[in-house]
Amino acid sequence: MSIALRSGYLMPLVGMGTWKVPKEDAADTIYNAIRVGYRLFDGACDYGNEKECGEGVARAIKDGLVKREDLFITSKLWNTFHAKEHVLPMVKKQLKDWGLEYFDLYLIHFPIALAYVDPSVRYPPEWAFDGKSEFKLQNTPFQETWQALEEVHKLGLARDIGFANVAGVLLCDVMRYAKVLPAILQIEHHPYLVQQPLVDLAKQFGLALTAYSSFGPASFIEIGWDKNTASLFKHPLIGGIAKAHGKTAAQVLLRWSTQQGIAVIPKSNFPNLITENLTHVDFNLTAEEIKAISGLDLGLRFNNPVAIDSRFGIFA
Amino acid sequence: MSIALRSGYLMPLVGMGTWKVPKEDAADTIYNAIRVGYRLFDGACDYGNEKECGEGVARAIKDGLVKREDLFITSKLWNTFHAKEHVLPMVKKQLKDWGLEYFDLYLIHFPIALAYVDPSVRYPPEWAFDGKSEFKLQNTPFQETWQALEEVHKLGLARDIGFANVAGVLLCDVMRYAKVLPAILQIEHHPYLVQQPLVDLAKQFGLALTAYSSFGPASFIEIGWDKNTASLFKHPLIGGIAKAHGKTAAQVLLRWSTQQGIAVIPKSNFPNLITENLTHVDFNLTAEEIKAISGLDLGLRFNNPVAIDSRFGIFA
Repeated sequence: MSIALRSGYLMPLVGMGTWKVPKEDAADTIYNAIRVGYRLFDGACDYGNEKECGEGVARAIKDGLVKREDLFITSKLWNTFHAKEHVLPMVKKQLKDWGLEYFDLYLIHFPIALAYVDPSVRYPPEWAFDGKSEFKLQNTPFQETWQALEEVHKLGLARDIGFANVAGVLLCDVMRYAKVLPAILQIEHHPYLVQQPLVDLAKQFGLALTAYSSFGPASFIEIGWDKNTASLFKHPLIGGIAKAHGKTAAQVLLRWSTQQGIAVIPKSNFPNLITENLTHVDFNLTAEEIKAISGLDLGLRFNNPVAIDSRFGIFA
Repeated sequence: MSIALRSGYLMPLVGMGTWKVPKEDAADTIYNAIRVGYRLFDGACDYGNEKECGEGVARAIKDGLVKREDLFITSKLWNTFHAKEHVLPMVKKQLKDWGLEYFDLYLIHFPIALAYVDPSVRYPPEWAFDGKSEFKLQNTPFQETWQALEEVHKLGLARDIGFANVAGVLLCDVMRYAKVLPAILQIEHHPYLVQQPLVDLAKQFGLALTAYSSFGPASFIEIGWDKNTASLFKHPLIGGIAKAHGKTAAQVLLRWSTQQGIAVIPKSNFPNLITENLTHVDFNLTAEEIKAISGLDLGLRFNNPVAIDSRFGIFA
């Protein structure tokens, strides 16, 4: 199952996220995921494991499991590289890390511009501009960064381009100045954060959507950002629907997205769950079930940079 | 009571809004409001009454009630005039309508750009580009419009500049490219739509805030946009607090804003209410009362252009 993007290329509806995949496991994780059938991998500079993910890809290609053109590799530009002079060098560095000649999709990770950090000093630079707990905003308008991504696209280094964590009013603005239209909006999306108006707006403008953190609080427990929220895996509504279909709660949560045409990029450390996530599309929820799950909406966002610095109010 | 803006000029904390003030009443309404003590008037091209409001101002000045420098006049740029070549002519036209040499504050009304409508064809042009029920988006980036407002400021035609209806992520972007920093963010703000993260972000960036529709649904009944929402005037919590202070519900709603440093621009058709709105600042709510009122938050927005056209998703 896949979605046609702006470029005409297809993006698989189910992929694997690589956030929080430890460096030391990343090559094997990617290799094994390809072996069990994953074709889309969602990476980012910030995840700190692109080189190792690329090793997994290279090994899978070398072993004849897949060809490059069978895969769909996403990467993302980090906040410290928004200036036009930094975008192209970073894309080239990230491609080199992955061992690839092009990304299928390249996204602006956040609409937040931070002061440049030279990769030789600290890579990935994370949120702090000097490795300490300080944040230095940089006056690079989003338009400048978008135009740099358009250049990346024109050079053939990214077949499609887009962004994550962008709210409606900035999406509207991009639509006014984009020469290459954004293909993808990637957002936090789960039953506690439905964001239907944003989903509708993105579709209206011809963007496809990718959901991250499809399992809600579960994705944030290990970094302490789960706000002590009740697990969606144990929610009686999700559990009841899962039982009715003979599926797991995780599969119901993913299907809730994919059945609405929103791609998912779950991650798990357990081989059986990795397979279950990939194969979750072999059943359909009823319209009533989708509606009931959407009814759990709390407007509850777990990944909000404003918690790091009060000036990062991109969801205000 | 007033707030110092970027320019150093002071803005009264309480003013009068002119939205829905009928053309035929506008001159008298403004004149009488000045007579009872109002000094700030919040106008806009879109309200269709700037000429008549200006007549009220002129008469009050002629009769010696006030001098120009005692007044604080706000106006707003309409959506059809976002292109850089249209901004300055429109400001000049609006100043001429008001009979003024400068605005104290000039705002971009919405972060929505629509196709130009010549004022000789239709003025104000409202949302439809040709007077029919059609909407034609225009590809003017918000930055272009902001830069045109900076020019208006440099020419001395607006002492401060800002915008209304802008969410956090676009405010962050403006802060990256503004050469003249925005002074004011005007937002829909009442106990059913608290928007604390946006209020905090604007203050963090040094903007002052003006609340519109402080009475919530009451402002939208006559245009049928009140969503059948229970009146805040009759809400038991508001009523109880009003009674405890010997004030009206309207005064409690206004004080909830002004005590948080957020300016208000209420409007009424009744002389006693007009005076009550202006003089509402002579009491203080307790911190607990402010918190309890904020606890009514429903995230319920009445003025959302997406209801007009699905592409106007500026609050998604």
